[in-house]
Amino acid sequence: MRDQLLQQYQELLTSYLNEKREDILYTAQQMSRWMMEQRIPPEEMVSVHAEAVKKKLPHLSPSVKDSFDLLIEMMIGYGIALKEHESLVNRQK
Amino acid sequence: MRDQLLQQYQELLTSYLNEKREDILYTAQQMSRWMMEQRIPPEEMVSVHAEAVKKKLPHLSPSVKDSFDLLIEMMIGYGIALKEHESLVNRQK
Repeated sequence: MRDQLLQQYQELLTSYLNEKREDILYTAQQMSRWMMEQRIPPEEMVSVHAEAVKKKLPHLSPSVKDSFDLLIEMMIGYGIALKEHESLVNRQK
Repeated sequence: MRDQLLQQYQELLTSYLNEKREDILYTAQQMSRWMMEQRIPPEEMVSVHAEAVKKKLPHLSPSVKDSFDLLIEMMIGYGIALKEHESLVNRQK
């Protein structure tokens, strides 16, 4: 599933970098909603983004690559809060 | 507050890029927790990261800069879910 996700996101990224249109950002919103329905946490989303950027821009500097590690770490806390959210919602059903 | 946040995150990023130590990632976790307590949404966190990276790496390619717009768009959905979470938690208090 992650390979498919990465490929779809990579196509989205390529489209957006080629031509910065608003409808591509709208597609991003829809993909984001789908990812949340699949319980994909935000740090995984950032990890997919990082991987897609590295593939798309192979001459990326090591500093940019390393900076993603820090962002992923920052996102883990948000991911934990979202899991809390899911369990609360489920408990109320 | 955002200027202070950006400066602190920029210092954290600089430290991590200079020397990739685990304790800096731990500091990132703590900063992330603080940001969530301040109700800073994940897309704002990514925006701060993007700004810090642009300042730290001024020769960053336009494609890398543009790619952040897409990631921010993806994160907005997660931010909305977290706001739902906050209102649920408050309602139960």
